[in-house]
Amino acid sequence: MAAKRNAVTTEAPESSAPGEGTALALDSRLSKRVESVIPKKRHEALKWFGWGYNDSQFYGKDGIICFRGEKYPLGGCELPSFTKWVEKKFDLRVDITKQYPQLPRTYPRPVENAPFLHELKGTSQVDYSAEGIDRLVRCHGQTLNDIYSLWHHKFRRIPDLVVWPRCHDEVVQLVRLAHKHNVMLVPFGGGTSVSGAITCPQNESRMICALDTSQMNRLLWLNRENLTVCFESGIVGQDLERVLRSEGLTVGHEPDSYEFSTLGGWVATRASGMKKNVYGNIEDLVVRVRMVTPSGTLERECSAPRVSCGPDFNHVILGSEGTLGVITEVVLKVRPLPSVRRYGSLAFPNFEQGVLFMREVARRRCQPASVRLMDNEQFMFGQALKPEKSWWASVVDAMKQRYVTSWKGIDLNQICAATLLFEGDLKDVQRQEALIYEIAEKFQGFPAGGQNGERGYILTFVIAYIRDFGLHQGIVAESFETSVPWDRCSLLCRSVKQRVVSECSKRSINYYTISCRVTQTYDAGACIYFYFGFRSTDVADPVELFEAIEHSARDEILSCGGSLSHHHGVGKIRSHWYRNAVTETGSSLYSAAKRHLDPKNIFALGNLLPLEEAHPTAEASPPPPTSSTPPKAKL
Amino acid sequence: MAAKRNAVTTEAPESSAPGEGTALALDSRLSKRVESVIPKKRHEALKWFGWGYNDSQFYGKDGIICFRGEKYPLGGCELPSFTKWVEKKFDLRVDITKQYPQLPRTYPRPVENAPFLHELKGTSQVDYSAEGIDRLVRCHGQTLNDIYSLWHHKFRRIPDLVVWPRCHDEVVQLVRLAHKHNVMLVPFGGGTSVSGAITCPQNESRMICALDTSQMNRLLWLNRENLTVCFESGIVGQDLERVLRSEGLTVGHEPDSYEFSTLGGWVATRASGMKKNVYGNIEDLVVRVRMVTPSGTLERECSAPRVSCGPDFNHVILGSEGTLGVITEVVLKVRPLPSVRRYGSLAFPNFEQGVLFMREVARRRCQPASVRLMDNEQFMFGQALKPEKSWWASVVDAMKQRYVTSWKGIDLNQICAATLLFEGDLKDVQRQEALIYEIAEKFQGFPAGGQNGERGYILTFVIAYIRDFGLHQGIVAESFETSVPWDRCSLLCRSVKQRVVSECSKRSINYYTISCRVTQTYDAGACIYFYFGFRSTDVADPVELFEAIEHSARDEILSCGGSLSHHHGVGKIRSHWYRNAVTETGSSLYSAAKRHLDPKNIFALGNLLPLEEAHPTAEASPPPPTSSTPPKAKL
Repeated sequence: MAAKRNAVTTEAPESSAPGEGTALALDSRLSKRVESVIPKKRHEALKWFGWGYNDSQFYGKDGIICFRGEKYPLGGCELPSFTKWVEKKFDLRVDITKQYPQLPRTYPRPVENAPFLHELKGTSQVDYSAEGIDRLVRCHGQTLNDIYSLWHHKFRRIPDLVVWPRCHDEVVQLVRLAHKHNVMLVPFGGGTSVSGAITCPQNESRMICALDTSQMNRLLWLNRENLTVCFESGIVGQDLERVLRSEGLTVGHEPDSYEFSTLGGWVATRASGMKKNVYGNIEDLVVRVRMVTPSGTLERECSAPRVSCGPDFNHVILGSEGTLGVITEVVLKVRPLPSVRRYGSLAFPNFEQGVLFMREVARRRCQPASVRLMDNEQFMFGQALKPEKSWWASVVDAMKQRYVTSWKGIDLNQICAATLLFEGDLKDVQRQEALIYEIAEKFQGFPAGGQNGERGYILTFVIAYIRDFGLHQGIVAESFETSVPWDRCSLLCRSVKQRVVSECSKRSINYYTISCRVTQTYDAGACIYFYFGFRSTDVADPVELFEAIEHSARDEILSCGGSLSHHHGVGKIRSHWYRNAVTETGSSLYSAAKRHLDPKNIFALGNLLPLEEAHPTAEASPPPPTSSTPPKAKL
Repeated sequence: MAAKRNAVTTEAPESSAPGEGTALALDSRLSKRVESVIPKKRHEALKWFGWGYNDSQFYGKDGIICFRGEKYPLGGCELPSFTKWVEKKFDLRVDITKQYPQLPRTYPRPVENAPFLHELKGTSQVDYSAEGIDRLVRCHGQTLNDIYSLWHHKFRRIPDLVVWPRCHDEVVQLVRLAHKHNVMLVPFGGGTSVSGAITCPQNESRMICALDTSQMNRLLWLNRENLTVCFESGIVGQDLERVLRSEGLTVGHEPDSYEFSTLGGWVATRASGMKKNVYGNIEDLVVRVRMVTPSGTLERECSAPRVSCGPDFNHVILGSEGTLGVITEVVLKVRPLPSVRRYGSLAFPNFEQGVLFMREVARRRCQPASVRLMDNEQFMFGQALKPEKSWWASVVDAMKQRYVTSWKGIDLNQICAATLLFEGDLKDVQRQEALIYEIAEKFQGFPAGGQNGERGYILTFVIAYIRDFGLHQGIVAESFETSVPWDRCSLLCRSVKQRVVSECSKRSINYYTISCRVTQTYDAGACIYFYFGFRSTDVADPVELFEAIEHSARDEILSCGGSLSHHHGVGKIRSHWYRNAVTETGSSLYSAAKRHLDPKNIFALGNLLPLEEAHPTAEASPPPPTSSTPPKAKL
């Protein structure tokens, strides 16, 4: 149970007395409520059946794919090139007669833990709901399987209750109650997980309570001298940045999900942001963090920037994926808003040259805020998404005009492109630009314009909407990522694409797309994103098929020396490989930590270790034999 | 017990077959033995009774303090200014009649675990020694208490046996044997700990075996494309850098102890290097690490640069301080050697202005490889250490010549100085220099010359020898460090110095020195080093007195919002505050991890948690009440 010293901390908003103890928020009167773009009833703004805002969507009109949604630059556009790309790639015409799924008429009957409910209603002020729609929209994340299950009303288990704590103390209360009455808790933030991490375990027999953090989204304090800020964990990325921008500051953490994902989710999954080169990944940004566990609140006592004080438990909280407790408050570093933000792009004769360029930029540690390299297939796809004259066309024009003689030998089916984002003061940006273009030249790269770069970044948030449209039209598609040492980067890209091609061929899948991009660079390696999709109109269970191929691709990734995940986390869908990734000793250490912090396994999400293995009752029980041995790296 | 997959890994050097499994060294034939500056019989090169080389030492001659030791630039110098400084500060003349201590004639009788010894000798090829001198020089680190205890033959318990494993596999064997026969193991690297971490627990009744890692110091491989290198953990800092330098590379990790401390020790204590601004602290440099525990080898399966794969157990190994297992192999990042290395220095009218300068440099993230700010007292001390015309004199000259009119108002008893080290290519260094001097000017700082800066850095390694000379002459002195958010930096420096002054006054200590420097800067705060010493000629137990005052100073540090330690670690001497620093939940999580990895507590070093609390047999036993409650931060 929570130790006394953690019991009185950040108080509920209406309380006027400052919290005692060592709360990260020392005086709740300093805190500031943030108006969120996401309402408490999230389905009023967000799709119940897929990604993003209700008013933003791809759709077909007169055989042309269009996008509606004024929140995005593509809003109101017709996309004839994209339509053609889809038609050619998948031999498929847009079908405007298809219907999107309907909400279920009934919901799974809730499991009720009467003593828990009695005590919750009697002793706490925590708001709750048992309405079907509230429960349904919090039973899942955003994996293909999640969405497919939603559309086909396949969820047998959804949360039996949703609760909305408003502060750290209410979370402490809820965790205590759940532990006492043996109720399972699912910490629910932005719901954007793509690892199955927040998907309700379908075999849980206890009452499941979704702990929605959206109502704990205050800015607790801002310290301009230290350039640190303390937020409650439920704040959504775009809300956080909007609030800070009004103060001339930024955290600069921009995962592709940042419109909807929350600070707590970033910490729980070890998120990575597009601009990590300037601002750092989430582990570089976190100064302090609090996590409420059944055994008390885990946190560090001081806000010093770097300490040598035994094992660093922040790194146990980071990546805990909801299985150890609820993250409630986070102190982050902030930076002054950059005075200059500039985009750029480069073209390379082929992907390998592009990778060499990326490696050299990393070696010289001169990365701009973001630099991303797309392969030819992905580049074409990106071009197709443009409503106006495409980048592709403009690149070709530029080439024709400026490089036609010296670049004659280039194969336009091999060409690939990098997008660049520079942030800083003018002099720094200019210096960075000069250096980047100088390095690019060594690898036969040439500038392809700032406008092209900007389009690439702006598209990021729209692309997330394509998956649901594809699923609707008979194409299953999804991305997966890894990280890998530099010397295997090209090999891994090639091998994984080949593997997917051969898996498709084995299964007589004739219409598909597989592409990749290098999205992050580090001293010792890079992050690689794959996009894979195929036409599933003739397939009985397209998601099962997709997952089987993705499974093979992951085997291939691992055997090429890639990691299980760069930033999406393990969740349920990659738990098959977790033990191997951290070794037996590591997975048993995780289990020991879990048993200690959550002895009744109320956070039984089944992430990292498959559910049946995560919480053996006998301390020394040997791990069950795995049916298929995960592959060894070809070293 | 070690899992099978960890059993056959890096082989002993004489083995010709490459190791199986997932050893960090994939083919032992690639590995390279490194000739170390430190022999296996370490006392043949290093002082048994104090810091450093046998042939390097401060001493008195004709009333003047001199330094012998050709390994250092001060070697062969007379130090008249330093002599005067000591005389004035401590009212003490150099006494050349005093003798250094003699080796004890007898050693504590070893505790022998016969079955362990039998199996060790029968089944392993591990070299060992039970000689008194081998045991004595591995029973301690370099705290004042350690050295004082050595000089006064106060150690009741020293290792009963020393073993020298030559590779990961032999460590696995030793840990298995020790676990089987319940023998305590002390991982021993460079012996430079200043936290009591490797000091033999004086109440241990089991056989104590010092596991000396010095014979596992191979370079296992070097990957130029990834810029990563794999070393065995026993390699000494200067050996590691020498080997890499011959390849045109550097790790760039330079803690003040780096002549003698080992890679394994750096990881176990979470070390910080002088040049961390360019190269990073040890946690930024480690890509992979292996630690052998009684429950198996803890390591990550892949070498990807950044992963999202659950809690990061590297951060449990980092800071484990020998209590969880033996670190055997480490993959580190390397960098090309910088083409330019340039020194600089700055003077500021007072310490507060200097701190504002440091803060601004950190805010603008333009730190050179190293920037350190000394207060007035420490600046004077540094000047005194110069054999030739001092920096102080040259600064005064420079001021007189160049700034006399505009700087008339400066109080020379307030002036302080920063030393600078720039590394990189010429253009980068020039740009950095220009920016640093521009920022300094805003805070009334002015350049005081590159030569002065260089001297400051060169002195670093010599200063470590002063402590023993002081102790010999009747002065006890030691440093201690912390890290703190920027907004408390000046306050903490002031408060801690005032506290020491008042503690000295209370105890009628009239001759003392207390000074500080800011040695590292981070986005959100800084590292501060304090130096404290007093004349102990009239004191019965000078070390006890020193520790009492240091204890008060640490209380003051904590109440000012400083950390328990920036990079020295907790060890035994700061274990009093550990629970408070990581909260009850954190310390019980540490205990749970410890129980899991080391169920028989064979690594019973008593670091982090005081011995009696570290390993309660009953899982859920409440922590014993602490007699004095550690102070709360004045927030």
